[in-house]
Amino acid sequence: MSLDRRTFIESSAALSAIATLGAPHTSAAEPKSTVNFALVGLGSLSTNQIAPALQKTERAKLVGIVTGTPAKEKIWQDKYGIEQKNIYNYDNFDKLVDNDDIDVVYIVLPNSMHKEFTIRGAAAGKHVLCEKPMANSSADCQAMIDACHQHKRKLAVGYRCQFEPHHLHCRELARSQAFGALKAIEAGFGFKIGDPNQWRLKANMAGGGALMDVGIYALQACRFLTGEEPVAITAQETKTDPQKFAQVDETITWTMTTPSGVNCYCSTSYAFSGINRFNAYAENGQFGLNPAYSYEGIQGSSSKGPIKLPQIDQFATEMDDFAKCILEDHPSRVSGEEGLRDLLAIEAIYQSIRSGQRVNVKRIA
Amino acid sequence: MSLDRRTFIESSAALSAIATLGAPHTSAAEPKSTVNFALVGLGSLSTNQIAPALQKTERAKLVGIVTGTPAKEKIWQDKYGIEQKNIYNYDNFDKLVDNDDIDVVYIVLPNSMHKEFTIRGAAAGKHVLCEKPMANSSADCQAMIDACHQHKRKLAVGYRCQFEPHHLHCRELARSQAFGALKAIEAGFGFKIGDPNQWRLKANMAGGGALMDVGIYALQACRFLTGEEPVAITAQETKTDPQKFAQVDETITWTMTTPSGVNCYCSTSYAFSGINRFNAYAENGQFGLNPAYSYEGIQGSSSKGPIKLPQIDQFATEMDDFAKCILEDHPSRVSGEEGLRDLLAIEAIYQSIRSGQRVNVKRIA
Repeated sequence: MSLDRRTFIESSAALSAIATLGAPHTSAAEPKSTVNFALVGLGSLSTNQIAPALQKTERAKLVGIVTGTPAKEKIWQDKYGIEQKNIYNYDNFDKLVDNDDIDVVYIVLPNSMHKEFTIRGAAAGKHVLCEKPMANSSADCQAMIDACHQHKRKLAVGYRCQFEPHHLHCRELARSQAFGALKAIEAGFGFKIGDPNQWRLKANMAGGGALMDVGIYALQACRFLTGEEPVAITAQETKTDPQKFAQVDETITWTMTTPSGVNCYCSTSYAFSGINRFNAYAENGQFGLNPAYSYEGIQGSSSKGPIKLPQIDQFATEMDDFAKCILEDHPSRVSGEEGLRDLLAIEAIYQSIRSGQRVNVKRIA
Repeated sequence: MSLDRRTFIESSAALSAIATLGAPHTSAAEPKSTVNFALVGLGSLSTNQIAPALQKTERAKLVGIVTGTPAKEKIWQDKYGIEQKNIYNYDNFDKLVDNDDIDVVYIVLPNSMHKEFTIRGAAAGKHVLCEKPMANSSADCQAMIDACHQHKRKLAVGYRCQFEPHHLHCRELARSQAFGALKAIEAGFGFKIGDPNQWRLKANMAGGGALMDVGIYALQACRFLTGEEPVAITAQETKTDPQKFAQVDETITWTMTTPSGVNCYCSTSYAFSGINRFNAYAENGQFGLNPAYSYEGIQGSSSKGPIKLPQIDQFATEMDDFAKCILEDHPSRVSGEEGLRDLLAIEAIYQSIRSGQRVNVKRIA
C-alpha cells in the first residue's frame, strides 16, 4: 500500500460514502476492500488454525509469510500461493517497508518475540495483529503501543473470544443485567502440557507458564463480562513437578475484585486438562460457557436453558474485524491497551504470589 | 442411661462379643441397640430435616426436645410422642443430668450458642452432636472438645456430607488416585439470603456470614477429598449491599494450598443462589458434584461418566453413625477436631481478608 493509498483509505468517511454509492470496482480509485496479511511465525497455531482461517476470511487475505525455517517456505508457497517476493525471514523482516503488497503482520511467535516484531513491523509501516499474551511485561506492551502510535499503525491483540457469539451473548447477559447485577465469576483454563522441551516452558521465551498462556483467557473472560478492571488480586501457586516447571508456573489460582463488587475466582494450570469454562453468578440467575475457550464447539447455558448460537471460525472473524478496522480507520476493540490491561493484572497475580500480599492492579497512566 | 450401663456399654469389645453370640434380647444385660436423642433448638432445620430424619433412623431415637418457645412443646409432643419429662428449656437444660432417658443432645441452635450448650450438655453427662459451624472461633471449638473430653462424652459435628454416597465415592476417586494425583479443586456454595432480620445476618449470633454458614461446605469438600489440611490461604470479600450485610460477610472467594500441592479455589455468598458444587481436577481426569451440598438430589459426574449412587437421608445416616460410635465406643469421623480444623481455616480466611496477606493456617496443637 503506497503512502497515497494509505492516506486515501484513512479518510474513511469519504471511503464509506463511495462504497455506499457503489463506485465501480474497476475504477482506479476503487476503495480497497481487502487487507493483505503476512503471518510471522509458522508454528502449529499458524499452520493449523490461522492459515486455514485465512481461507474463509472476507476482508483479510494471506499474501505473505515470515519464517526462520527455510524448509517451510516452499511448503507454504505451494499450499497458499505465496509469491516469492512476499516471503521474509527474521533478518530481512524490516525490508517489509518496501513491500506495499503487505498491510498487516500477524505476530504468531513465542511471547518473548512479540514486542520486537510488533515494533519492527510498525516501523516497516505495517499494521500489527499480535497473538496473546501481548508481551511478557506491561512495559513491553506500552512500548508496542507507543511504536504503533508513533508510526500511525493500528495494533490489535489476538483475543479471538471477544468475537465469539456465545461470549458476546454472555457479555450482553452481564451488561444488560438480564439476571440482575453480577456478583461473582468463576473462570478457569488449563491443559496438561506435553513436550517438556517446548518454548512454553522456558521463562525467557514464554515470560511465564500456564497463566501467561491460558490463564489469560480466564482473566479476559472476567474483564470482558464485567467491562471492569480488577481492583485487587490475591493469588497462590503450586508446583508438583518442579523439574518440568523449573522456569514457569504450573498451577495458579487467584481472586480478583472489581469496582462494582464482582468477586472473581480463577484458575489456570499446565498440570491437568479439563477446565475450560466460566460461570457468572448474578443476583437472580447464572450463565456460563463450558467449553469456553476452545477453537470450536463452544457450549453455554444460563438459568433459562442452553445458549445455542452459531459456531464461527474465531480467527477468521478476528482477522476480518482487524481488516475492517483498517479499511474504515477505527481502533480495534482488542486494542493494545486491552492487551496491556491484561498484563497489568497478570503482573499483579505474579506479584501477589511472590509477596504473599493482596496487590492493587496498576491502571493505565 | 445409668453410670453402670454406660460403663458396660463402653466396654465395647465385650458388647460386640455378646451381640455376635446373639444374647437374648430380653436379658437384663441386653446390649443397648438404640441411642436416645434430644433436639436442642426447634428451628426450621430441626423441624423440616432432623426430626423427620429421626423417623428413619435405626439406632438414633428422638425422645426429647429443648426449646425456648413453650408453644412448640405441645406441637412436638403430639407429633413425635415426646414424654413431658423429656422436654426442657434453656434454663433447666442442666437438669438433663438427672435424665437417663436421654443419651445425646443434638445442638441445632444459632452458631453463637453451640459452645455453651455443648459444654453444658457434656457437663450434664450427654454426648453431643453439634451442627456446623461447630462454633464461632477455634478457641470455642477447643473449649468444647476439652469439656467433652473432661466429661468423657463423645462429640461430633453435623457434617452430613461426609456420610453421603456421592461424596464418599469422590473421596475414594481422590484418595485412590483413580485419575492420578489431584492438582486442583474448585468448590463453591452460596444462596441468596431472604429475611434481613434473621440471626444469620447478626454477627453476635452467626459469628460471620456466608462463609460460616455455607462456605464451610466448600472448605469441607476440599479437606474431605484431599485428606489434607490447608497450608496457606488468600481471600477477598466483596459487599454490594452494605446495609443488609452490615455485620457479616456477603461474598468471599479464597484460594488454599495443601501439602501435596493441591491448589483450591473457592467461593461462598449470601448474594446469589446457584453455586452448589465442587470439581476436582487430577492429572488424568476430573470428577465433581453439582448439586453437591443439598439435602437431597446430589448429582455427580467424572471423566468416565455420571456418578449415580443411592440418595440417602444424610441427617439420618449422620445420627445413626453417631449412635453407632456411642454404642461401640469409638470416636466419630466428624469429630470435634474436624470442626476445629475448619474453624482454623475459616479464621485464616477472615484474617487474610482483613490483613491483605497470605495467611498460614494454624495447626491443632
